[in-house]
Amino acid sequence: MKKTPKTAMLGDHGDKTFTLGELAERIGADLQGAADIRVVGVAPLDEARPDQISFVGHPRYAPLAAASRAAALIVDASRKELGRPLLVCNNPNLAFARAAALFAKPPRLAAGVHDSAYIGPGIVFGEDVAVGPLAYVGSDCQIGPRTLICGGAYVGDAVVIGADCIIHPRAVILDECRIGDRVIVNSGAVIGSDGFGFVQDEQGHHVKIPQMGIVRIDDDVEIGANSSIDRATLGKTWIRQGTKIDNMVHIAHNVVVGEHCILVAQVGIAGSTQLGNHVVLAGQTGVLDHVTIGDRVRVAAKSAVAHSIKAGEDMLGIPAVPIKEWMRTYGNVRRLTQFRNQLKELAEKVKTLEQAMQGNSDD
Amino acid sequence: MKKTPKTAMLGDHGDKTFTLGELAERIGADLQGAADIRVVGVAPLDEARPDQISFVGHPRYAPLAAASRAAALIVDASRKELGRPLLVCNNPNLAFARAAALFAKPPRLAAGVHDSAYIGPGIVFGEDVAVGPLAYVGSDCQIGPRTLICGGAYVGDAVVIGADCIIHPRAVILDECRIGDRVIVNSGAVIGSDGFGFVQDEQGHHVKIPQMGIVRIDDDVEIGANSSIDRATLGKTWIRQGTKIDNMVHIAHNVVVGEHCILVAQVGIAGSTQLGNHVVLAGQTGVLDHVTIGDRVRVAAKSAVAHSIKAGEDMLGIPAVPIKEWMRTYGNVRRLTQFRNQLKELAEKVKTLEQAMQGNSDD
Amino acid sequence: MKKTPKTAMLGDHGDKTFTLGELAERIGADLQGAADIRVVGVAPLDEARPDQISFVGHPRYAPLAAASRAAALIVDASRKELGRPLLVCNNPNLAFARAAALFAKPPRLAAGVHDSAYIGPGIVFGEDVAVGPLAYVGSDCQIGPRTLICGGAYVGDAVVIGADCIIHPRAVILDECRIGDRVIVNSGAVIGSDGFGFVQDEQGHHVKIPQMGIVRIDDDVEIGANSSIDRATLGKTWIRQGTKIDNMVHIAHNVVVGEHCILVAQVGIAGSTQLGNHVVLAGQTGVLDHVTIGDRVRVAAKSAVAHSIKAGEDMLGIPAVPIKEWMRTYGNVRRLTQFRNQLKELAEKVKTLEQAMQGNSDD
Repeated sequence: MKKTPKTAMLGDHGDKTFTLGELAERIGADLQGAADIRVVGVAPLDEARPDQISFVGHPRYAPLAAASRAAALIVDASRKELGRPLLVCNNPNLAFARAAALFAKPPRLAAGVHDSAYIGPGIVFGEDVAVGPLAYVGSDCQIGPRTLICGGAYVGDAVVIGADCIIHPRAVILDECRIGDRVIVNSGAVIGSDGFGFVQDEQGHHVKIPQMGIVRIDDDVEIGANSSIDRATLGKTWIRQGTKIDNMVHIAHNVVVGEHCILVAQVGIAGSTQLGNHVVLAGQTGVLDHVTIGDRVRVAAKSAVAHSIKAGEDMLGIPAVPIKEWMRTYGNVRRLTQFRNQLKELAEKVKTLEQAMQGNSDD
Repeated sequence: MKKTPKTAMLGDHGDKTFTLGELAERIGADLQGAADIRVVGVAPLDEARPDQISFVGHPRYAPLAAASRAAALIVDASRKELGRPLLVCNNPNLAFARAAALFAKPPRLAAGVHDSAYIGPGIVFGEDVAVGPLAYVGSDCQIGPRTLICGGAYVGDAVVIGADCIIHPRAVILDECRIGDRVIVNSGAVIGSDGFGFVQDEQGHHVKIPQMGIVRIDDDVEIGANSSIDRATLGKTWIRQGTKIDNMVHIAHNVVVGEHCILVAQVGIAGSTQLGNHVVLAGQTGVLDHVTIGDRVRVAAKSAVAHSIKAGEDMLGIPAVPIKEWMRTYGNVRRLTQFRNQLKELAEKVKTLEQAMQGNSDD
Repeated sequence: MKKTPKTAMLGDHGDKTFTLGELAERIGADLQGAADIRVVGVAPLDEARPDQISFVGHPRYAPLAAASRAAALIVDASRKELGRPLLVCNNPNLAFARAAALFAKPPRLAAGVHDSAYIGPGIVFGEDVAVGPLAYVGSDCQIGPRTLICGGAYVGDAVVIGADCIIHPRAVILDECRIGDRVIVNSGAVIGSDGFGFVQDEQGHHVKIPQMGIVRIDDDVEIGANSSIDRATLGKTWIRQGTKIDNMVHIAHNVVVGEHCILVAQVGIAGSTQLGNHVVLAGQTGVLDHVTIGDRVRVAAKSAVAHSIKAGEDMLGIPAVPIKEWMRTYGNVRRLTQFRNQLKELAEKVKTLEQAMQGNSDD
């Protein structure tokens, strides 16, 4: 059993600390309480220790606030009478995200290329790039400054990756794809797999259409674990700036996803479909091919989008329809037993009337 | 072309053999027939050779029993008149599982760390741990006795894994996650990826909430190929003892899955949802966030759970409702053409009555 | 920072060129125009340069044809009056696929085993096999001529792979599976993971049934990124010749998929189900276990197949029904508000009639 490590390339674990005064300034909150109390981290309301802060991000958690042992709570103005140290702001969730980021551990991967990594020829590395153990970086890549290519990650030939990206362990970015700055690719995600393009020949056999395009991913995108984004047949599959993609999302060839979209887990988008900006597709939703979805459209979970949708609509259902229409239809469906009884009752009344009428006629 | 191997670290292929008498004792069955017949394995009824055993696990397979060439059949008491060597027991499927386990090949990975693996500093290995070629084990891990970290598997920093686990090729367990004893993680599964947590800032941009928690997986859990289990925002995502998870299942941050649950392929569970014990979610089912599902709830395939469910319910549909309610509604929907015809007929009768009434009035 | 590569094993990038005359012959089209114009590639209508060709594969793209700068267009006979160089054929999509294949770059992996790959003992390599950096090939494998096992791919013990296959980076083929000729396995796909087979014991605990079978994949199959195909409990899970499987498709143990089928992204097929030939399952469709689906069945997206389907049916819905039946039911459901109003109106008329009748009786 080998016990001595091959190499030590890990950063410090050392926790960071801040005073409440420093935190208030960094996250843009008004401090109610002593500025010099020093805290070491963030925690949920019911788990926070006296040297941690916590937050009330949703009314459902408000009942836990009074009993929390946290040094201070991030709250909105509606809760500023809690009578304890508070960090008051407009958006406690946003302030919490910023506070947590201050305490988050830096990734433990030191700059440099690990000896066990494979590195092709002709790569241009920016400053302080890290390539972890058993990672793969193909030939002719450009890797921007401070980007981390974690242990076991795979970056193919002629890939361009910007600055400050994190390519997590076992993530795969295939040949010639282009990745912007501050992009995060989670483990198991595959970027640049072949699009699913075939043509039937005379015998009904499926002939592969070579997938010769690329995937382009713009700045500040995050791609979830085990998601896949296929390369274009020709041209590019394009994920635009600020879009966040959850786990096991499938994006087919030549799709364009606009800016600042949210694609929740297990969503699938078929070929050549275009999404506008600020679109939200909830979990397990599917979108057909060659469809256009306007800005700010929101589609509820497990829906199937079969047609283009104009900007601003809220949709639901299989097939997806405007949410009000779905509610009306669903209400009707649930009243069907009642309809059925009314219909039966009415049929009896009509029969009685007919008999009475018959009786009258017989008079 | 390199033809000589770098290393030989494989175990024996040697098949195991048992007599029917030994088998009966090991699997808890009553033997009808000669105890000294020796068999070398298990096989389906129609493929078994005279030196293998087979089983009747479902009435659909009963017609194949008579013609099977197997040395003996595992059956329940209802079939003990088959007039051939039998292993009679209460639960033939369970007895078959136990018999098959006796014959199953041991994993072919020898104890020790392969030269091509990456091993960080500060790891504590139990006895007879195996780390295969090109596997990765980060710093400060604890790996329990007899656990196999197969070729190409990835275990991040400060991970704790118990005894007798199998981490299959290319499985990924990320930093600080905690895995119990006898856990099986199939290839491509990702444990500890970042949860999907963002807050919108003033411009509608999505600001990442650092995902600072872990995943805890208790004893006897199995995780399917290409599944992903996200780490908690704070605290833990928790898969409790004995739960079995199929392929491509998505489990979001802070979810708790109770004991002895079954999550079938392509299920998705959104953030902070809690499942009780012995819950069954069939394939492609989705569960919304912050929902509580009671013990022994069963949800049929492709359902969407939008609300909490109390213990013991059987649910179906999008959205999921109790199965009886779904059946009634579905029956009504399928009768709609009939309703429509009845409505039309009734309308005609009413028209006739009105005209008759009009006639009467005109009299 | 290490900048010199460990090895240079990449092929040429050199683009291929063809004259229009050569292309016409290769793809089986009639050339209208000068045979000696030389072109270097294919591109979409609106992006093609004068040294590229393009195609009109769907009427939706026809309006772009006139303005395209392409050297020539692949079209069908209905467009042969375009008054520019044309490659006229029966099936422009098929001809385009063949033309694109002529220009497609050869994979950039040189024959031979890379020094950083792991290679077990007893492997039989055909001619010109390539095993890329950090790839894994287990013991006793047979790898056919010209097959590429790309960087980071994993092939377990005793696997048989035919000729001219591409096993993409990070694809996983587990022990004893059998792969035919010209098979493509995309990144992140897992072939041979354990089937999801458990039996409950007396305490309601799930006892694993050892999964002792294999996966067999026949010639000309393609498997998409992050898909998983489970090995059989006993015997084989079988994907037959010419079938194409998209990303994140789940195929359970003992399933048989017939020849020339199309399984679109995120489809799931439960255990022991059998598909005939030329079956098409659109995206996110699920099929229950132990179901038989006949030849040429097509199931629309997001359907749930709960029963066997006879050959040639077109199905849709949850549960899936013949498409005409679904259309009728869906039409009825959308007319429910109208039904409801008719019912209300009718009830009022009946009431009026009853009152009138009452009045008559009172007369």
